Amino acid sequence: MTQTYNFSAGPAMLPPQVLEQAQSELLNWQGLGSSVMEVSHRGKPFVELAAQADRNFRSLYQIPDNYKILFLQGGARGQFAAIPMNLIGKKGRALYLTSGHWSATAAKEARNFCTIDEVNLLTQGAEQGIVNLDFSDIAENYDYVHYCPNETISGIELFDVPNVGNAVLVADMSSNILSREIDISQFGLIYAGAQKNIGPSGITIVIVREDLIGNARQDTPSIWNYAVQAQSDSMINTPPTFAWYLCSLVFKYWLAEGGIKTIEQRNQQKAKLLYDYLDQSHFYHNRVTRQNRSLMNVTFSTGNDELDAKFVAEATACGLQALKGHKVLGGMRASIYNAMPIEGVQALIAFMDKFAQNQ
Amino acid sequence: MTQTYNFSAGPAMLPPQVLEQAQSELLNWQGLGSSVMEVSHRGKPFVELAAQADRNFRSLYQIPDNYKILFLQGGARGQFAAIPMNLIGKKGRALYLTSGHWSATAAKEARNFCTIDEVNLLTQGAEQGIVNLDFSDIAENYDYVHYCPNETISGIELFDVPNVGNAVLVADMSSNILSREIDISQFGLIYAGAQKNIGPSGITIVIVREDLIGNARQDTPSIWNYAVQAQSDSMINTPPTFAWYLCSLVFKYWLAEGGIKTIEQRNQQKAKLLYDYLDQSHFYHNRVTRQNRSLMNVTFSTGNDELDAKFVAEATACGLQALKGHKVLGGMRASIYNAMPIEGVQALIAFMDKFAQNQ
Repeated sequence: MTQTYNFSAGPAMLPPQVLEQAQSELLNWQGLGSSVMEVSHRGKPFVELAAQADRNFRSLYQIPDNYKILFLQGGARGQFAAIPMNLIGKKGRALYLTSGHWSATAAKEARNFCTIDEVNLLTQGAEQGIVNLDFSDIAENYDYVHYCPNETISGIELFDVPNVGNAVLVADMSSNILSREIDISQFGLIYAGAQKNIGPSGITIVIVREDLIGNARQDTPSIWNYAVQAQSDSMINTPPTFAWYLCSLVFKYWLAEGGIKTIEQRNQQKAKLLYDYLDQSHFYHNRVTRQNRSLMNVTFSTGNDELDAKFVAEATACGLQALKGHKVLGGMRASIYNAMPIEGVQALIAFMDKFAQNQ
Repeated sequence: MTQTYNFSAGPAMLPPQVLEQAQSELLNWQGLGSSVMEVSHRGKPFVELAAQADRNFRSLYQIPDNYKILFLQGGARGQFAAIPMNLIGKKGRALYLTSGHWSATAAKEARNFCTIDEVNLLTQGAEQGIVNLDFSDIAENYDYVHYCPNETISGIELFDVPNVGNAVLVADMSSNILSREIDISQFGLIYAGAQKNIGPSGITIVIVREDLIGNARQDTPSIWNYAVQAQSDSMINTPPTFAWYLCSLVFKYWLAEGGIKTIEQRNQQKAKLLYDYLDQSHFYHNRVTRQNRSLMNVTFSTGNDELDAKFVAEATACGLQALKGHKVLGGMRASIYNAMPIEGVQALIAFMDKFAQNQ
């Protein structure tokens, strides 16, 4: 079989070692004679798995003790509704900083629950990037300020954290959670679908500061009420146990590999390799300004739709999968999340070079 | 390794053949060189899997063409909120028929969204069972009538369908979906977490009549808005792809085994074996009246808490797992869902007999 590399924007690659372990114990987990997905979530083996996943994720991502980690269902889009339901308080309004499709979609869903003010961070376009992240003068008027530090469609990442003074900062980190070191204490709440950097789809991680828990609207669905879920260790109902199990294996894997510093170093190295190649190329181009180039999603194009389509088709035939850009933007997109090895990026560059020479 | 049988109330056993297939292709699905959980839900292979799952489930469970099948996240408890959000209309009220813990919990969550009238079907207790299921005189006052035809904790099943005239009947079939033939056209909506009879936890199935779609409240979270999800083939956001895949394998498995008639026949046979044994025993007893004895969850007890605990411990040591009853009721509970083979019930009875003789 040809070695394949999967550049899917999500669900995305998992570390092969994790999948191999899952495969080997799929029918008999911990000698129980059952699959991990067949056992009760309330039994001792699974409860211990959940506790270990909490400890390992906390250690790996340097999450302070005054934050709860919730493992929920519904995806980041579920949280688009759950966040205002849980966090809107006396001020009755939230500020959404938008930088692309996902932050705008989050703002739209939140409008069902409160007044939303919106600031577009990209008034100058992707080429100019994001120039102002200081909202300390207005942030106190809002119950929280929401942003999305990595927009997968355009490949725009915000490396600086918005200054919101003492206000509560909420971040949708679905596409860059656990990709580099961050100071969790700058955030009130971080949330992410697991399916890019942490596990399979079907499980959503919420890291929430304890003082923000307990103020949900009365009609908040119980599975999304942070107080209810924190109280029941994310088990108010049957959780997605197999997805949780895979997350636990991924946490262990990265701890053994060296932790968040190793992850960040590898991600920097992979992205630099690809952006350096793009910068010296006269055939391909990336239009995002340097200071906002995503470490996770690298967008590029030949500038010609037919040639882009040919590129994607030939790359797929060579085992370089899912390189087609999002339909909104066209072109190509290489998603190089944590589990993408540097060899995948090298193989992509080798293919790009050969393709360019053949045109 | 001792042959183990897992009597967990859910997550529960899956057919071994399904798990074996999942194991064999876990790292390389359809020759793609990727796991099914690593590929995009919008790519052709997964979209075809989803379409096939729809066709097979429709065929297996005899679901008419005027019903949509949605594969969602959030569990049945998520639907406790989603159902009133989607179905409450001009009448502004719903009728909840309660017969135990789960139907009462559903009613409680629905109260956040509308006026709920509640009728306890078990006024005479489990020994007397359910005597009246005719609500045709009052049902038209409500936007829908909700009930739970199988209560897992007490092991009470309703085999007759409530008469609600022309009103919309909603059923939480989490614990008895696909366990026997039913006439889907009697229901407006059927929902179920997959983790008992269909797949792993983390995916929720909603079968909803098309004319009931499109009337959701404005603030219904988009992942639970039936119109939004029907329109996007249950992919308004990244779905739980691996769980969906396993459901698809389970549907294929049961079609190959002979379909719903085979499933029902086997479930009847397994339950009869166990209830017949209980009825002739002077040592164990089940307190549910005959006409409401669940085919799925068989509750029993020695009448002595210490002896019950000893039973559970010794059974576990013999590979008969998860027989402890729910904490509310105590005693024992054998959940014998679709994937439990008759050999599991035979092994349980052999153990019960030996245990009784040794006391």
